[in-house]
Amino acid sequence: MKISRLLYSGAALAALLLQQSIAFAQTDADVYQKADALLKQMTLQEKVSLIHGSSSFTSGGVPRLGIPEWVMSDGPHGVRLEHGRTYADSMGIADASTYLPTGVCLAATWNPKLGYAFGSVLGSEAAYRGKDVILGPGINIIRSPLNGRNFEYQSEDPYLVSRMAVGYIKGVQDQGVAACVKHYAVNNIETKRTSINVELSERALREIYLSGFKAAVQEGGVYTLMGSYNKVRGEWATHNNYLMNQILKKEWGFKGAVISDWGAVHNTQQALWNGTDVEMGTDLSLGKVPDYRKYFLGDTVVALVKSGKTPEYIIDDKVRRILYVMLKTHVIDKQRKKGSFNTKEHQQTARKIAEEGIVLLKNQNNILPLTSKVKSIAVIGFNANRPQGLGGGSSQIKAFYEVTALEGLKRQAAKGVKITYAQGYKIERGAQADAAMIKQAADAASKAEVAVIVGGWTHGYDYNVWADNAYDAEDTDKPNMNMPFGQDELIKAVLKANPKTIVVLIGGGPIDMTQWAQNTPGIIQAWYPGMEGGNALAGIIYGKINPSGKLPMSFPKTLAEAPDHVLGDFPNSKDSNTVYYNDDIYVGYRYFDTYKVEPQFAFGHGLSYTQFAYSGMQVQAANGKATVTFTVTNTGKTAGAEVAQVYVHQEKSLLPRPQKELKAFDKVFLQPGEKKQVTLILNQDAFQYFNDVTNNWVMEKGNYDILVGGASNSINLTGTATL
Amino acid sequence: MKISRLLYSGAALAALLLQQSIAFAQTDADVYQKADALLKQMTLQEKVSLIHGSSSFTSGGVPRLGIPEWVMSDGPHGVRLEHGRTYADSMGIADASTYLPTGVCLAATWNPKLGYAFGSVLGSEAAYRGKDVILGPGINIIRSPLNGRNFEYQSEDPYLVSRMAVGYIKGVQDQGVAACVKHYAVNNIETKRTSINVELSERALREIYLSGFKAAVQEGGVYTLMGSYNKVRGEWATHNNYLMNQILKKEWGFKGAVISDWGAVHNTQQALWNGTDVEMGTDLSLGKVPDYRKYFLGDTVVALVKSGKTPEYIIDDKVRRILYVMLKTHVIDKQRKKGSFNTKEHQQTARKIAEEGIVLLKNQNNILPLTSKVKSIAVIGFNANRPQGLGGGSSQIKAFYEVTALEGLKRQAAKGVKITYAQGYKIERGAQADAAMIKQAADAASKAEVAVIVGGWTHGYDYNVWADNAYDAEDTDKPNMNMPFGQDELIKAVLKANPKTIVVLIGGGPIDMTQWAQNTPGIIQAWYPGMEGGNALAGIIYGKINPSGKLPMSFPKTLAEAPDHVLGDFPNSKDSNTVYYNDDIYVGYRYFDTYKVEPQFAFGHGLSYTQFAYSGMQVQAANGKATVTFTVTNTGKTAGAEVAQVYVHQEKSLLPRPQKELKAFDKVFLQPGEKKQVTLILNQDAFQYFNDVTNNWVMEKGNYDILVGGASNSINLTGTATL
Repeated sequence: MKISRLLYSGAALAALLLQQSIAFAQTDADVYQKADALLKQMTLQEKVSLIHGSSSFTSGGVPRLGIPEWVMSDGPHGVRLEHGRTYADSMGIADASTYLPTGVCLAATWNPKLGYAFGSVLGSEAAYRGKDVILGPGINIIRSPLNGRNFEYQSEDPYLVSRMAVGYIKGVQDQGVAACVKHYAVNNIETKRTSINVELSERALREIYLSGFKAAVQEGGVYTLMGSYNKVRGEWATHNNYLMNQILKKEWGFKGAVISDWGAVHNTQQALWNGTDVEMGTDLSLGKVPDYRKYFLGDTVVALVKSGKTPEYIIDDKVRRILYVMLKTHVIDKQRKKGSFNTKEHQQTARKIAEEGIVLLKNQNNILPLTSKVKSIAVIGFNANRPQGLGGGSSQIKAFYEVTALEGLKRQAAKGVKITYAQGYKIERGAQADAAMIKQAADAASKAEVAVIVGGWTHGYDYNVWADNAYDAEDTDKPNMNMPFGQDELIKAVLKANPKTIVVLIGGGPIDMTQWAQNTPGIIQAWYPGMEGGNALAGIIYGKINPSGKLPMSFPKTLAEAPDHVLGDFPNSKDSNTVYYNDDIYVGYRYFDTYKVEPQFAFGHGLSYTQFAYSGMQVQAANGKATVTFTVTNTGKTAGAEVAQVYVHQEKSLLPRPQKELKAFDKVFLQPGEKKQVTLILNQDAFQYFNDVTNNWVMEKGNYDILVGGASNSINLTGTATL
Repeated sequence: MKISRLLYSGAALAALLLQQSIAFAQTDADVYQKADALLKQMTLQEKVSLIHGSSSFTSGGVPRLGIPEWVMSDGPHGVRLEHGRTYADSMGIADASTYLPTGVCLAATWNPKLGYAFGSVLGSEAAYRGKDVILGPGINIIRSPLNGRNFEYQSEDPYLVSRMAVGYIKGVQDQGVAACVKHYAVNNIETKRTSINVELSERALREIYLSGFKAAVQEGGVYTLMGSYNKVRGEWATHNNYLMNQILKKEWGFKGAVISDWGAVHNTQQALWNGTDVEMGTDLSLGKVPDYRKYFLGDTVVALVKSGKTPEYIIDDKVRRILYVMLKTHVIDKQRKKGSFNTKEHQQTARKIAEEGIVLLKNQNNILPLTSKVKSIAVIGFNANRPQGLGGGSSQIKAFYEVTALEGLKRQAAKGVKITYAQGYKIERGAQADAAMIKQAADAASKAEVAVIVGGWTHGYDYNVWADNAYDAEDTDKPNMNMPFGQDELIKAVLKANPKTIVVLIGGGPIDMTQWAQNTPGIIQAWYPGMEGGNALAGIIYGKINPSGKLPMSFPKTLAEAPDHVLGDFPNSKDSNTVYYNDDIYVGYRYFDTYKVEPQFAFGHGLSYTQFAYSGMQVQAANGKATVTFTVTNTGKTAGAEVAQVYVHQEKSLLPRPQKELKAFDKVFLQPGEKKQVTLILNQDAFQYFNDVTNNWVMEKGNYDILVGGASNSINLTGTATL
């Protein structure tokens, strides 16, 4: 009996393992076999139903064959509220979810493990909510300070983007949900986004704008990719033979499905031939149920195939890609992990990302952290007392809760600390400085030991009104880099009333601080830090958390000094439908360093409450690779983390190259006095550049400077790799 | 003394050989060394002067460094008349040159040696006239019967195009002059030619539209290539990254220069980045001297480079390409062969091409050739008595002389043969049947033993007025395939008056003959047969020449049965700026065979005055290649030539393939009773097709039918290659 039971258990275990292996370790060969078996049973009409939308956020299924509709959801930093089958917002709270910090804040952690953790939360909540595809990460390069969607994206640097995106994608997909990397490609401004054509050199395309997508596909194994609204070199990005067929599918070997941005398909044949696999959102009429069969990839396709004008294998390829992803993510066998929703762990992940992503930009005379001696704080600014989750466009999150800065500072204040609040400014389109509010704020500041102004950008004046998303928002660009709503006047008045003022900036990127930065002792970049942002910020301000975020983008002093404005032609091209990326590869710090322009705050910059020393640099080069070794020591009295950054500069190159380029980094956590040896390997791609005359990645022999430091403008160690 | 003199002679010989080797056998390494030496000495302004026009048909030089202006000339079938520095036509006769048959007639010879001979004449006359670049061959695929420029092009079949183009290019370039293959790419209609956008599948692009250009580059070694006016997939062809940089320059390894069609550049940065090397004809204002520095690739480029917005290496690459071609073709060292002009040999080459290119379409009851018994001939039709050389647009030739059909028939008529002439129809825009002229023609026919009507298309009603080029002409498409000017009525009336009527068709391609073809015993396709066309035609009609031309394109019965009209959307898309090539790879006989539609006359069809038998087929397949052997016998009583055509059909393929595709041919010249064994090798590319899902050329294992015969619809031998 005993033996028999053991055998039975063994068989049960084997069956379980088999099931698990089917569910979670299917080989591509298995998957294609299943996909092809399904494909064979499908009628043409059924195939076509899979390649276009069937409701606001689903594409069609084949119930007869057990293929359900494919369920997608925005967005990059949380599972968006439900829209039912139309685009009507749900009114309940069942879809209130974890609101993670947005992309720029994640990137500012420079911690790929948090990328994975971020993706895991998103994937888990998506699975719980029955979503098969989560429409993120958004990884377009932050080229211009004005782009309204910068807050959703990650960085001006393709290497940093790649590292964060790969972690994010693996995090999502390990939950059994498909990530959807977006928006492919060169979708770096929102102005005229549905008609603008981008012209750029092949070198800029390859070195700057495609690198992140390549990593997402080849290293992240992303299952789906979203085609963008714009045109690239005259052809709509979503049905762009060069980008989709030649580069994505052929060169990079992408096996998954290309999903159009909502309404980005313009033509049946172009979509069929040039790489679009799923057409979504073509008719976005709110509240109306469109006739989905009239989509470009609807009945027209059936007619084209039947009349012999389009070969059926083109459709088969699309369906096979969709089925591949569906099978890989258990849409059909329903073996996906159930996921979880609004757990404490998810909220803690959101908090951790905010804590590591918020950047301490300036800390004159160690005004921060506020010690226990500070007994009164004037919190000033509308952004301190205002949730942001539901704003910004399609990435809006109905947050399960959102801790504002004011709430966080109040909650974590030591006993006996008095916190007052003054709104300071109005958020309204075109609102100017309000003298009464400024006076009230200055009064509050003068009566407190320290003033904390929480201002900066916002998603708009009414976060619930999509169309009025004014600054950091989809479908809009900022008109300039100036502080809106009279905040310059507010800050100057508060500084006058109380020089011990800390400015906390909310927003997706740089703002012009030339009027007050010099006189402000403490400046913090808080991004959109998610539902736990107020707690994270308060932790940093009170010194419970040692800041470790680093800027994932350069902060130019003024818009006039931003490379897209100096070299490029945005926004001057507003009268035309084409924008020329004349700034070429000189995006962000590649511009500031090479053209010797000093930014307000440099790429990679971010202060800590402790100090770090770099020492013991060694560079060993062989076989086209280099191994870089150095030691980081926490020489201060507080535990903290340093992002050690490795830049490469080619001493002499055939074609001009930027002054330096980020090629490796490591976030090192150190107790006071602790030291760690860091070893980073620079592969061949760390030394290559794209020669757009010969159209090849090239690696030239010669000397490469290896520059190591805590920011792009703070190099502590240098070495040479001779390759 | 003797020894010394011998030594001296030896040295002189060595010097001569050295000079020759410099002049005619420079290695690429030598050339690049010289080019780079020149480049180093050039200022930016000087470099820029090379990349744009300096007059109507020159681009700039650098006199200081001995680099002259680069002199170009239309066109594909003769050196065009002189235009001075503006576009004003010269009025003299010094520039009256050899007028070769146009492209379709050359292709109809199916004789690559004549391609070479054609190119040699052109190159020699270009050299004589001081032209560095001759703007031909034109090799766009003949996709629609309506394209006004079909007469300049060659075939609907990419393999036939490749064979003829390679010979042509080598012929030109062996004379030390650069050929310029055009118009790259997918420039298959003239309607809206300067704004139309073409969308097509990658498979059609690769299999049909690019093959000829690839052969021109890789087999022909063509030195320059002309970018076309149209857009391809949204991007202007002339500055099209995918076509120019990715495919032409990178994938195919093109070393030469891309020249824009005249006025095809639209933007500085696009041209700079996306592959244009020389901008020509941007301001075409007749008689006005444009400010060439204001060209897109003029002073703007200097400013862009100076301001750091464009890297200079982009300009250097273009200049290097231009210098490469200049050096290869002795523009700088002036060692080019002098060439010759209007020689008897050139004229005989023109005649030979016409003799082999004119196609005998129908010969019921052997009405042809006209025997010595025929003593009276009524020649009818305006095309019999009218030169064509100066028409058609930019390919116009001021012919040194032009023998019309009437002249030829008169000259070669046996003694005592009476030839009358009736014009039969008027050439005027919208001209209808003229009852009086028809009556006159019918009367003439009724009084003669045989009537020969020479009609068909024309370049226009006034061959000297560019703007009024009506049918076979640049910048226009035919409105339909119907015979213009009431010729149907004319032919029917003549047939009624005299059933022994032969119709000779002038024109660049098919015309609707459904009203009279069945009742007409003799039909000849004479194309635009060049300056000796009348002699060649008369030779065929009188039986002095045995016709051996074969159709390089299918002749559909009606326009409604042409594949671009059945499957495609031309001309229905006239309201839009995009034409969709829904006919995909089913161009010409690939359509008629696969869709089982009977054309009026099939691709490859062409009769002879003798008969040929095919026998002894053997197919040996190994290592992805097949060797096909068969014997052709002249079983008739007249010496003649047969074009033995080898088609391949894959029995079972993953993706649908055309019923058959031309992959080899040989023109076999045979005396009566003579037989020749033909051996042709089919390489891997004879069996491959382009899979536009995987974006690769694929060769599948399996059986391939090898079909051998004298026309695409006349297969005499079949075999199988198992690969």
